[in-house]
Amino acid sequence: MQKNSTKIRIRYGETDQMGVVHHGNYAHFFEVGRTEWLRNLGTSYKQLEKSGIMLPVVSLQANFKKSAFYDEIITINTYIKKIPSVKIEFDYEITNKENEILCTGNTILVFVNATTMKPTRCPEFILDKLKEVNLKC
Amino acid sequence: MQKNSTKIRIRYGETDQMGVVHHGNYAHFFEVGRTEWLRNLGTSYKQLEKSGIMLPVVSLQANFKKSAFYDEIITINTYIKKIPSVKIEFDYEITNKENEILCTGNTILVFVNATTMKPTRCPEFILDKLKEVNLKC
Amino acid sequence: MQKNSTKIRIRYGETDQMGVVHHGNYAHFFEVGRTEWLRNLGTSYKQLEKSGIMLPVVSLQANFKKSAFYDEIITINTYIKKIPSVKIEFDYEITNKENEILCTGNTILVFVNATTMKPTRCPEFILDKLKEVNLKC
Amino acid sequence: MQKNSTKIRIRYGETDQMGVVHHGNYAHFFEVGRTEWLRNLGTSYKQLEKSGIMLPVVSLQANFKKSAFYDEIITINTYIKKIPSVKIEFDYEITNKENEILCTGNTILVFVNATTMKPTRCPEFILDKLKEVNLKC
Repeated sequence: MQKNSTKIRIRYGETDQMGVVHHGNYAHFFEVGRTEWLRNLGTSYKQLEKSGIMLPVVSLQANFKKSAFYDEIITINTYIKKIPSVKIEFDYEITNKENEILCTGNTILVFVNATTMKPTRCPEFILDKLKEVNLKC
Repeated sequence: MQKNSTKIRIRYGETDQMGVVHHGNYAHFFEVGRTEWLRNLGTSYKQLEKSGIMLPVVSLQANFKKSAFYDEIITINTYIKKIPSVKIEFDYEITNKENEILCTGNTILVFVNATTMKPTRCPEFILDKLKEVNLKC
Repeated sequence: MQKNSTKIRIRYGETDQMGVVHHGNYAHFFEVGRTEWLRNLGTSYKQLEKSGIMLPVVSLQANFKKSAFYDEIITINTYIKKIPSVKIEFDYEITNKENEILCTGNTILVFVNATTMKPTRCPEFILDKLKEVNLKC
Repeated sequence: MQKNSTKIRIRYGETDQMGVVHHGNYAHFFEVGRTEWLRNLGTSYKQLEKSGIMLPVVSLQANFKKSAFYDEIITINTYIKKIPSVKIEFDYEITNKENEILCTGNTILVFVNATTMKPTRCPEFILDKLKEVNLKC
């Protein structure tokens, strides 16, 4: 289980009139999480797009446990449980500085060839990186 | 099953560099859907907040089937399947003008007393409205 | 002076913890305004992009007079004062239903050839449409 | 002239279909800039709100020189030129890692008493902090 943790600070514009972070922003937080997960692996989502592969989200799930507040630093924990195939599935756990779980989530993304717009298998350079870090599933 | 349909036009800023609507915006589209569902019932989310009740989202789920594009008019279909208790659960189906399903989704929200911050039952004025429209579940 | 008025309803996620619309959203409201201005002229921004022309914003200015609130319907008034050249300049006035001015603004955009990425003159089909509506400047 | 520099990484959802950062996001980047400017001074915007003062934006201006791209790290330089009175005025310069200027901007904000909703003078604790850092204007 390859895991990455990254921290971000909540922006004012991410709050709503309930006085807490609007739930719609968590899709962006998850995206930051998987971007940093890929970077930590030694590659990047940018590099993936340059190699002609897009990675659209096909499903998103989030459970909101506690609120996040303006100016708070939150930790986005991102991990995968399965070797990616045509799909890659990420799990997320977002915590505050008291280590309370604010939100858990899951997204499934599909590797798509940007030219043919057809699903394609996870590129070898990602699978190789995962082998290097000894991913056990 | 009380259903409401509402239409919105995709804004430029809702697209991302994949050339389609960023998936994070669907949380906002669902929110527009349930706002109009409540209005169609003869009440409003604004009125609910004024009566001292907040309705935070506790879970969000979305499946993305096809992309939505800039300037396209999409239809947000919103409905409930169960009489609300402490929770209210909405289902969504978003379609384009060719009536293709772009996205299906579900959110669960909890009625919360804004003073005590404790969960509370669905207010009578909403249950009464639902009775008026003869909700069968 | 070619003017267009369009109405939108404020979404929950557009508010912030001050209880009003976050000022960052006005850039999106202006964009909705000029999109509808172009449509009203008999063309569209989408068509412009299809013809190989992009229209990036080079300057943005906004003065915030009064707050906009959740669920409120606001009117975006959009107009131009000068025949577009390489640039097109839009003025905006956003009002609430009491006809109070919430925000005034201005954006300058540049016509850019999407292939060469160089500035280019306003396409004839837009200038022709403006002549049809007898634009006096 | 009290200046602060802070860095952020561009998120995927901040791009639009032109393939660059949507101009509407710069209002959020400016907000991050002034939040960090205040923190660097030894106080915080959060603390200001807790002391019963709100700081709404009354004017926003931005000039877009070059595009920012996904995953790029940008630097937000924030400074003030005048001792704040009822208003506080921030200037911004956003640069990329080649030190090219992407955007310059300016916002004016007004100190507002959250109870009376009337404009009020800049709190002493901010003026004192500015004296400590020897602000010359």
